[in-house]
This record gives sequence, structure tokens and C-alpha cells, in this order.
Amino acid sequence: MSSHHIVRDDQEPALIIANGAACSEELLGQLLEWSPIVIVLDSAISRVIELGIKVDVLLGDFDRDFDADYYKEIQYPLEIVHTPDQNKTDLEKAFDYLVERNFPAVNVVWATGKRADHTITNITSIVKFRNKLKIVLFDDHSKIFLIPKKYEKWYPKNTVISLIPIGAVHGIHSRNLFYPLENDSLTIGYRTGSSNHVAEDGIVTIEHEEGDLILMECWD
Amino acid sequence: MSSHHIVRDDQEPALIIANGAACSEELLGQLLEWSPIVIVLDSAISRVIELGIKVDVLLGDFDRDFDADYYKEIQYPLEIVHTPDQNKTDLEKAFDYLVERNFPAVNVVWATGKRADHTITNITSIVKFRNKLKIVLFDDHSKIFLIPKKYEKWYPKNTVISLIPIGAVHGIHSRNLFYPLENDSLTIGYRTGSSNHVAEDGIVTIEHEEGDLILMECWD
Repeated sequence: MSSHHIVRDDQEPALIIANGAACSEELLGQLLEWSPIVIVLDSAISRVIELGIKVDVLLGDFDRDFDADYYKEIQYPLEIVHTPDQNKTDLEKAFDYLVERNFPAVNVVWATGKRADHTITNITSIVKFRNKLKIVLFDDHSKIFLIPKKYEKWYPKNTVISLIPIGAVHGIHSRNLFYPLENDSLTIGYRTGSSNHVAEDGIVTIEHEEGDLILMECWD
Repeated sequence: MSSHHIVRDDQEPALIIANGAACSEELLGQLLEWSPIVIVLDSAISRVIELGIKVDVLLGDFDRDFDADYYKEIQYPLEIVHTPDQNKTDLEKAFDYLVERNFPAVNVVWATGKRADHTITNITSIVKFRNKLKIVLFDDHSKIFLIPKKYEKWYPKNTVISLIPIGAVHGIHSRNLFYPLENDSLTIGYRTGSSNHVAEDGIVTIEHEEGDLILMECWD
């Protein structure tokens, strides 16, 4: 039976360490604790190894001088996945890797900071994986994920909730947000729902009819 | 004659220091050198003053405990602009301030990093100001600006050029990019032109027929 047929529905999220700015070691430690697999993207491997983290998969196009054998020896066993496809980012290739192996969920760190093109592409690319992989991006100031057509969660009063439309999003209704949305539309670049917050301790409900809506829980 | 009627076409760009991650002091120093006006957003003022920078305008909603008089004294003369409108970000309000006073161009630093909602909103909000204000965002890894329907500039070979569509962009043609675009469409979240690069020393041409296309020159 190949790994393609293993059902992994109940397991904890995988962890991808991308190639942007490092997060706090505390956040990284929390996400590592239960992760069944750690995937590191490309040249981030050198920074990850300095932290003493055991890596399971190293994935990238390795287009700069890169000695895979060196890492294979010091991180044995280490799967090295060479992904030269230029139409996808390394992060998208890592999502594909997890989808093919039936992982249901993944947390991602180091996907923001440093190059702005990587940051915006990494954040927005999660919408393509709707229904395939539950993706949550974390950094030291943000928790980022795509929400379903109806989203409900308990939050304490004043929690910052930013709604970022990836493209145009229509038919948005909210309950228990300080600036309520009532059949509103949001369009990236023109009107976003950034820096809203929770009105009262309790369930927040956000529904939308059409489009890709990312929710960010952020803190200073 | 009010300041609204002064024509400022030939002058150097204004400088906005936003409230994200600080850039290198070298970059900040270069942008400060010729700037006719320095605008600082909200609580970033405390970090800016520590750097010994003379601020002309302090703009924000000041919704946390904030003693404007303290800064007025230590930065005299300092214009304090209180902007409580919750439908705009502080950065958009600063752009409005410059448009009203006929400034043609502005450089922006500290607009990326830290909170991801601020980063993505700051970057994408520049499209609203097409034809009103020439905006360039800088951080230590990126130079970010909206391009006109026909964009031409000389670049050295291998310069990284990322094309980020804010929404959907159609009818894109490029010359002298390593991965050429030929009547292509790009859509945020689904297909971006991130991490392209210049094929040969010379003029790069990028044309598009419809939509808002941001160009990022990025480096590691």
C-alpha cells in the first residue's frame, strides 16, 4: 500500500518552514511539538539546522549552489525533493507534496517578512488549496487562514480580526464584529476589512457568498 | 494663496514613515536626504524620534493613549493631523494629505513587516492612487510600485522582477524578461508573475491592457 492511500484525518498538522523571516523560537517550538513531519524550503535549511531542528523533508529547486548530500548526511534520514517547476513557488510545491500524501492540514512559518513578493505570493496562494489542505500561516504578529463560506469561532472582546479579500468578495455578513458587514463587498486594493475587532466576548460569525476571503488574527 | 494651489511638480518625493518594521538606517538616510517633508504615522513617532529624525507631520487616529503635546514640544514645529476616519488606513490618510497639498510623489518606508494585515493592505492600497500620486514603497528587500499601462526601464541582467496582479490583470506582454508574458493574464491568489528576472542588460518593457499591476524589484 503506497503512502497515497494512508488516511491521516485525525493527525496533527504538518509543519512547513519557508524561506522568509524567522519567527520567535517560542512560536516555532509550539508548532513543532506535535508535528508529524517537518518540511523545509530550499536554502532556509541552513538557518533551520542552526536551531537544532530535525528536518524530515528538504524541498526546493536548489537553483543556487547547493550541496544536498551534505544535508543528507547531517540530517539522516532526510528526504530531498527536487522541484524545478518554475510555474509554482516552493511553498506551493510543498502544499502539493502534502496533498499527494493525504495530509489534511499544515501550519506554515517563515512565509512572511524579507522579500515582499514572496510575502504577498505566499499569503495569497493559500486560496488555491481550498478543499484540499487546511493551511494556517503564522508569524510573530499574525495568524492567517482562508475562511469557509460560513465561519464561526468564539473570540474574546477586542481581538483584532482583519478580513482580506483575495480579489473581490461579495455578500459578506458578520455578527459580533465592531464594524459590522451587512451584505458588503470587499475588493483587494480598493476596500478591505482590515483592523476590525470583536465587539463582545462570544461567537463571531462571518459569512460570504462569493470569492476568497482570508482572515488574519493580528497583534502588535 | 492656500497651500492647495502651490504647484510642486519638480520637487523630490515626500517621505512617509509608516508603522511596520523599521528598515536599515542606510535606506532611511538615503530617502530622507532630499525629502521636502517627513510624515510619520501614529505611534511610529516614538521609534522615529529615537533615531534623531526631524519630523514635519505626525498623522494618525491616536486611538491608544497618546500625548500629542509632548511630541509638539520636542519636535517644534510639528503639524499634528488627527484622522479618526475608520474607513481608511493611516497610510491612505497620509496619501490623501499629500494629494490635497499637490505633492506629486512619495516614498514610503516601514510599511511592511510586523502585522501581515497591515503589510498586505499597505502594499495593495497604492492602486487606488493611480494618477493622483506616484508612490514607491521601500523595505530592505523590496522596491514596490504600480506600473502604468506601458512600463519601460533599463535593468541589468538577472535583476529580479516580480509582477503582482492586484485582482485580475489581462493582456500582459513583456520584452526582455526571462519568462516572457505574451497576452497573458495574472490573477492574485491563482497566477502571479513572482520571481521573474531580466534576460539581458537593457530595456525591459511590460504592457498590460486591463487591471492593476504592481512591480516589485526584490533582492535577498
